[in-house]
Amino acid sequence: MKKHNFSAGPCVLPQEVFQKASQAILNFNNMDLSIIEISHRDKNFVAVMEKAQTLALELLGLEGKGYKALFLQGGASMQFLMAAYNLLETKAVYADTGTWAAKAVKEAKLFGEVDVIASSKDKNYNYIPKGYSIPEDADYFHCTSNNTIFGTQYKEFPQTSVPVVCDMSSDIFSRELDFSKFSVIYAGAQKNMGPAGTTLVVVKEDVLGKVTRAIPSMLSYKNHIDKESMFNTPPVFAVYTSMLTLEWLQNLGGIAAIEKINNQKAALLYSEIDRNPLFKGFAAVEDRSNMNATFNLVDESHKEVFDKLWKEANINGINGHRSVGGYRASMYNALPLESVEVLVDTMKKFESTI
Amino acid sequence: MKKHNFSAGPCVLPQEVFQKASQAILNFNNMDLSIIEISHRDKNFVAVMEKAQTLALELLGLEGKGYKALFLQGGASMQFLMAAYNLLETKAVYADTGTWAAKAVKEAKLFGEVDVIASSKDKNYNYIPKGYSIPEDADYFHCTSNNTIFGTQYKEFPQTSVPVVCDMSSDIFSRELDFSKFSVIYAGAQKNMGPAGTTLVVVKEDVLGKVTRAIPSMLSYKNHIDKESMFNTPPVFAVYTSMLTLEWLQNLGGIAAIEKINNQKAALLYSEIDRNPLFKGFAAVEDRSNMNATFNLVDESHKEVFDKLWKEANINGINGHRSVGGYRASMYNALPLESVEVLVDTMKKFESTI
Repeated sequence: MKKHNFSAGPCVLPQEVFQKASQAILNFNNMDLSIIEISHRDKNFVAVMEKAQTLALELLGLEGKGYKALFLQGGASMQFLMAAYNLLETKAVYADTGTWAAKAVKEAKLFGEVDVIASSKDKNYNYIPKGYSIPEDADYFHCTSNNTIFGTQYKEFPQTSVPVVCDMSSDIFSRELDFSKFSVIYAGAQKNMGPAGTTLVVVKEDVLGKVTRAIPSMLSYKNHIDKESMFNTPPVFAVYTSMLTLEWLQNLGGIAAIEKINNQKAALLYSEIDRNPLFKGFAAVEDRSNMNATFNLVDESHKEVFDKLWKEANINGINGHRSVGGYRASMYNALPLESVEVLVDTMKKFESTI
Repeated sequence: MKKHNFSAGPCVLPQEVFQKASQAILNFNNMDLSIIEISHRDKNFVAVMEKAQTLALELLGLEGKGYKALFLQGGASMQFLMAAYNLLETKAVYADTGTWAAKAVKEAKLFGEVDVIASSKDKNYNYIPKGYSIPEDADYFHCTSNNTIFGTQYKEFPQTSVPVVCDMSSDIFSRELDFSKFSVIYAGAQKNMGPAGTTLVVVKEDVLGKVTRAIPSMLSYKNHIDKESMFNTPPVFAVYTSMLTLEWLQNLGGIAAIEKINNQKAALLYSEIDRNPLFKGFAAVEDRSNMNATFNLVDESHKEVFDKLWKEANINGINGHRSVGGYRASMYNALPLESVEVLVDTMKKFESTI
């Protein structure tokens, strides 16, 4: 354990992943070559890509259910665009639960009618809207499962007969869900999966082929499916490191196992936020994210004292996003429980100092 | 020296770059954190991005001349699309000199009239077309400076008053050119610059703002310029490793210095191809690429013998592309002269064996 890294993303990955990735830069698979100097068509890398795709589907329980897993470039921001390019023929409906959801809305508007049918913008996105209905004539419903900046997370998803497209960038592989209820799931790697530079896109094939527009090759899900994520040179290192992280998760017992630990970490931190009179939580209690806990000081004048304490405790990356202020502790899969214990101890120490 | 790596890309990088990149995966800048677990907004990474951009412009001699350097995702294939999205209002003209040039044409056709004003397809792309004129009413002229698959390279570029957009993926930073004659230069990193996963785009700002279509945020050059390549999370590791490679090149003496070595390597190999009666070159002599030498056996029945010999010599990655057959020896910046000497010695040994 080097530092207690609560960074919101890019973020902590398992230590064994750092070790293996570092080694592969020098000598990959005993080839006497670096993983970044071999052809992406080399059988050693093709095996990596296939394994990453298979592991993603296996961990999500989607193998044999008509889904394909792709590792693309461009981040979730490119998916805001690609989802609409590939699926929006007439009208799509979106839930606006934060900065990223709003950006997804903006890009989709270039391609058709976009109705924002639910929003929590009225309260600076501190809750997840509920109780709305999704029109049956929509091409799809788009939502953002976890809102990194505001620290909110869907605990239940709306029931609907239309295809659901979900940006799971900041909580994929962190909790069990019936993933077969989603037609498209996408996630930038740089939270629970790997380094920045690749994006997992899980597509149910039957949702494709329904738009009439011409889709540029690089933005076409069908094209990337046909070429098994190798339409052009993939981001080799990011895919390899994602594969290592997914292997680590599978060896740990998969999503069910990590969810238990994630629940423990979140329970520990939120109970301290609620108990400690010097702090207040930002997000509505029932919508609190198990990945990103957002909290503020009750009295901002104590900021300097607390900041000094957590830095002394070797804690990294808990400054809040400018939209919310205060603090944000991101507790992704690879963050050890021990790191949360250190943070909670620091919050207690702060209380006794003031 | 581990292997003699003639891979066409991803390809060999300087050994010191592998060492530094491997180390940064474990502990970057003595932060006690991996480079892939820190925020891309951390000052340590912001400095990397700034340095990579500055080095790119400095090495190309474009500092202070109205250009910006971007590090984006998606490879050159995404640039086929982005160039047209950002610049094609009415009509663009393209030179078709190979597989990648043809793909660029295909994507551009989604956005306006595209005239292929020169092509070498009639001879399986074994030469660079010359003597054509570029219409003055074109929004831009697009060309591909080096054709990796066919082993051809522009020695001179056509004179024109319209903006020139050039895909330099496989020969950027390898030779001195007056880069200020180009309005947009793009290059996937995975040849002379770094690992797969990022693409350098050098844009002259005055060429932008002339199309009337709405451009999606992720595809807008202006947007990426305004956000200094940080509109969304950049491919951190690929940018860092590119920066290391550009530093290596600068310390070596820049493009002028590497060009001398590249000329030596190419002269050595081509003179053996021409001398050795068992081989014949594929590309027209005057258009031969200094990066990718394509050559075939005069008598294919000797293939097994030659393949055994080069494998014994620890040579990697010289199988030709399926479009050309035979062999392709890629001699990118980081390939040592010694590797070419070993290949030439192996070709001589082959001659004495047959």
